Amino acid sequence: MEKYNALYAQSGGVTAVINASACGVIEAARENSNKINKVLAARNGIVGALTEDLIDTSFESSADIAALRHTPAGAFGSCRHKLGSIEKHRKQYERLVEVFEAHNIRYFFYNGGGDSQDTAYKVSQISKELGYPITCIGIPKTVDNDLPFTDNSPGFGSVAKYVAVSIREAGLDVASMALTSTKVFIMEVMGRHAGWIAAAGGLAAEKEGDAPHIILFPEIPLNTEAFLQRVKECVNKYDYCAIVVSEGIKNQDGSFISESGLVDAFGHKQLGGVAPVIAKLIKENLGYKYHWALADYLQRAARHIASKVDVDQAYALGRAAVELALAGKNAVMPIIVRDKNIQTYQWSIGEAPLEKVANVEVKMPRDFITPDGFGITEACRQYLSPLIQGEDYPPYHKGLPVYVKLKNLPVEKKLSTTFEVA
Amino acid sequence: MEKYNALYAQSGGVTAVINASACGVIEAARENSNKINKVLAARNGIVGALTEDLIDTSFESSADIAALRHTPAGAFGSCRHKLGSIEKHRKQYERLVEVFEAHNIRYFFYNGGGDSQDTAYKVSQISKELGYPITCIGIPKTVDNDLPFTDNSPGFGSVAKYVAVSIREAGLDVASMALTSTKVFIMEVMGRHAGWIAAAGGLAAEKEGDAPHIILFPEIPLNTEAFLQRVKECVNKYDYCAIVVSEGIKNQDGSFISESGLVDAFGHKQLGGVAPVIAKLIKENLGYKYHWALADYLQRAARHIASKVDVDQAYALGRAAVELALAGKNAVMPIIVRDKNIQTYQWSIGEAPLEKVANVEVKMPRDFITPDGFGITEACRQYLSPLIQGEDYPPYHKGLPVYVKLKNLPVEKKLSTTFEVA
Repeated sequence: MEKYNALYAQSGGVTAVINASACGVIEAARENSNKINKVLAARNGIVGALTEDLIDTSFESSADIAALRHTPAGAFGSCRHKLGSIEKHRKQYERLVEVFEAHNIRYFFYNGGGDSQDTAYKVSQISKELGYPITCIGIPKTVDNDLPFTDNSPGFGSVAKYVAVSIREAGLDVASMALTSTKVFIMEVMGRHAGWIAAAGGLAAEKEGDAPHIILFPEIPLNTEAFLQRVKECVNKYDYCAIVVSEGIKNQDGSFISESGLVDAFGHKQLGGVAPVIAKLIKENLGYKYHWALADYLQRAARHIASKVDVDQAYALGRAAVELALAGKNAVMPIIVRDKNIQTYQWSIGEAPLEKVANVEVKMPRDFITPDGFGITEACRQYLSPLIQGEDYPPYHKGLPVYVKLKNLPVEKKLSTTFEVA
Repeated sequence: MEKYNALYAQSGGVTAVINASACGVIEAARENSNKINKVLAARNGIVGALTEDLIDTSFESSADIAALRHTPAGAFGSCRHKLGSIEKHRKQYERLVEVFEAHNIRYFFYNGGGDSQDTAYKVSQISKELGYPITCIGIPKTVDNDLPFTDNSPGFGSVAKYVAVSIREAGLDVASMALTSTKVFIMEVMGRHAGWIAAAGGLAAEKEGDAPHIILFPEIPLNTEAFLQRVKECVNKYDYCAIVVSEGIKNQDGSFISESGLVDAFGHKQLGGVAPVIAKLIKENLGYKYHWALADYLQRAARHIASKVDVDQAYALGRAAVELALAGKNAVMPIIVRDKNIQTYQWSIGEAPLEKVANVEVKMPRDFITPDGFGITEACRQYLSPLIQGEDYPPYHKGLPVYVKLKNLPVEKKLSTTFEVA
């Protein structure tokens, strides 16, 4: 049996656990060295595949590959580049076939979110459309938790844990200072279209009065009056108010709140930061002293406080992708399936067709948000809680986490032509 | 021998480890129950002492007191309230004596930063000035690391670790995305007057090219041209640029950069956030896509990633305060002494007179900052590195850290008069 190479690539915004999936792919491939020759990696996602900028992972030691499991971000580089349709952008696909053929690649593993699964689906159609036998498996990844079919998306559980831990800690801080100092604390988190990450903050509130007291979701247009009323009630009742706000919250007219209000000295709209807009709203109407935090990349890179469930799932999905490919599947994505018949949380791996995964964005069900729009329901808590379970600490040296930096040695180019990525 | 009560209070901005000092005080006092009757705590710092709002810690179990060691923020509440001089504000001190006398308090432990040690010093003079026999010991605490005499301040090591870990993680994230997305990442950290916290970010950069590439200190007025030049060089050389900026950085004219440039829609200056100002500067001059984070309270509350050295020292200083008091000392503060004669880091407890501690702010020595003003020197690294050593994880339940909430039962008031705190 002739052996072929596999190509692995990371796509879209990186996470604390996408490298755990890479680890799963490479370890599973190495265990199947009778079927898969080498795992090559595309530098910077699909861009590296198009430009023949490939990495030979066979030079990496088993210890370094194992260390990917506890290393955040994208070890091979990621990108935000979406392939167009085969009809309109045939040249891109022909170029991919050239690269695949030149490097004896018959397996393609694409690790990313909704947009990336669209790319994966298109690549999976190459055999049919262009006649080159490629097996393409998508591997899910997104902090936004908005992929369909899978119970949850790898990367989300760790952000969820970071957000819940952080608002619990900051809440205690504000509570201590409230008498003579800060009364309102606002933590802005990611989530442009779906409120999953903001919702995770709600896990920190286990008892009456616990932070956070208010969550603002992109799914619920902001009712300013009701919101301010609630802030005031919290300060009266608990002496302080801790708020988690999604970057994507909107006004009643559907416009992003982050784009309203702030202009720089030249009258230009100021980018970024819905937290300061909310802080200003509170200050001007209620007069409370406030502080705000904007976690930005810290939240999705925070491997030091990753969820063990999330790490385990990301790794298992990487392995499953290889197993699916070797079982002759194409155009599928391994997914997380939650066993709903038992009380304790258990998960297994299933699969979904890439064609149906691509470009679908799952928002929070309305019944996961309380009727008033400011909190999460028990159903939401039941769903979210298992995803942040367990700690999976990286090793430390001199007080700092030890993250692996791979050699990332290039594969010698074999094509005489170059390719410009638009 | 008649036994007296002790009064413990927390003051100023809280930290991830100030409760470890509280734990040290209460545990040491309980071990000396033949000399100290009860430890009372003032609710919300000196304000609780003045208003006779006291907590009886004897109702707390040993397990709950032990759990203070891993619980961030101020378990008894803190405050930002500074006592005036005894000459001008004699009534406040007379009131303190009334409260001390009514509750049989002869030991006062005040846990705080520079301003708070000023308060502690004034209270220590009560015996001499007002004739009531009180022993007053200050316990150091401040994330700013700006207290004199002590090698470092409890609370700082944990913020330092948080900042170094966070910029390492976010740096990896940005590096993965730089080809097609964010090229510049800016992380704003605390430090209004001293750059210690920003400097700690520098620990993450161990090898050429590691994040952070640039640190902006409050001690060095911003040279915009040199800064932009450096950002450009980093992007050219490393594909991205990670920056740690202190909230307190200033323009060449000495004004705070956080106060420049941003106005709201009504033309009012917008408070908070030097990171977006720096981001805008870069965007307008170099055109790079940027992201920024503002950690705010998250950094000083982050008990989940506390430094073990910091926790150990905070606890030891709490114990030492009790021991100093029982040894008949007054008007002193236990401090951390670094053994400079040996290669490996070792520390012990010393003491400093409160009179000389109060209101002194220690800035970074110039030779801890590189000549160009954008990084830390080897001397700085040698000083900082031991302070972030070791992890001291809190216990977790259902994926979240378990922080103790004390009963905080009030002591029955004995005074017929109330006192208004200005």
